[in-house]
Amino acid sequence: MLQPLETGKVAQIGIIVKDIEKTARDYADFLGLPMPEISETDAIEKSHATYRGKPCEARAKLAFMKVGEGIDIELIQPDEKPSTWREFLDEKGEGVHHIAFWIKDTKGKAKKLEMMGMPMVQYGEWGTGRYGYFDATETLKLVIETLESDS
Amino acid sequence: MLQPLETGKVAQIGIIVKDIEKTARDYADFLGLPMPEISETDAIEKSHATYRGKPCEARAKLAFMKVGEGIDIELIQPDEKPSTWREFLDEKGEGVHHIAFWIKDTKGKAKKLEMMGMPMVQYGEWGTGRYGYFDATETLKLVIETLESDS
Repeated sequence: MLQPLETGKVAQIGIIVKDIEKTARDYADFLGLPMPEISETDAIEKSHATYRGKPCEARAKLAFMKVGEGIDIELIQPDEKPSTWREFLDEKGEGVHHIAFWIKDTKGKAKKLEMMGMPMVQYGEWGTGRYGYFDATETLKLVIETLESDS
Repeated sequence: MLQPLETGKVAQIGIIVKDIEKTARDYADFLGLPMPEISETDAIEKSHATYRGKPCEARAKLAFMKVGEGIDIELIQPDEKPSTWREFLDEKGEGVHHIAFWIKDTKGKAKKLEMMGMPMVQYGEWGTGRYGYFDATETLKLVIETLESDS
């Protein structure tokens, strides 16, 4: 019982899509929710994003919809630039890319995950927090995302 | 706001795997849970399963782990016989196959989903309930599972 993230509660189910407007509409109809707002990840000057150790200029459009207590479906439409999102779309097609967890201490958690064979592949920041994507496809059969908020 | 299932609450995240013993151990370590029990779907005599309209002799090994309020990760190791599980593994490899919802009236819900372009591809029963799998890959980018319990 290692529990490297100190939580076992899934916060997001991340789904890569090609046309976020259309898929968000389809999910809204299916879930009985209003059409969600569509946002965009910050540019690299603000996100300080990296992908496989290099500066990451990729951006994505995002939409969130609540599907349970403390859990959202996140739709992600990547652009053409290299990212974990684009890599997944090119290799696997549209579908579930990751599950996400709210954590504290991204750096410390990254070390623990690395020791368990889940290296960080992408990192980025938003206004008041930071995310990491960890390649757990060998073990957990998907990508793990960590979310850390300062607020 | 159609909400064909009359719920928007996800109950399961279904992940297709090749080696359920190993992946269940990896998830247990990751989530900080004990190793889950591994069960098997019933044989066709009891499950009355169908796949794409024909009798379905496929079976799968299953393991469930709680990842939030009323939501489990379900690991599924299919056998070699034709099923939605096997089809996904052959076409996409290991990964998230479906999200599931607890519903009432499987037949009625199947009609609504069909009208929304999500045809039923697999059906089966367990001791006190029944499941349906619906191909929503065109719209929702994954398979939808309905779960109905008589108890």
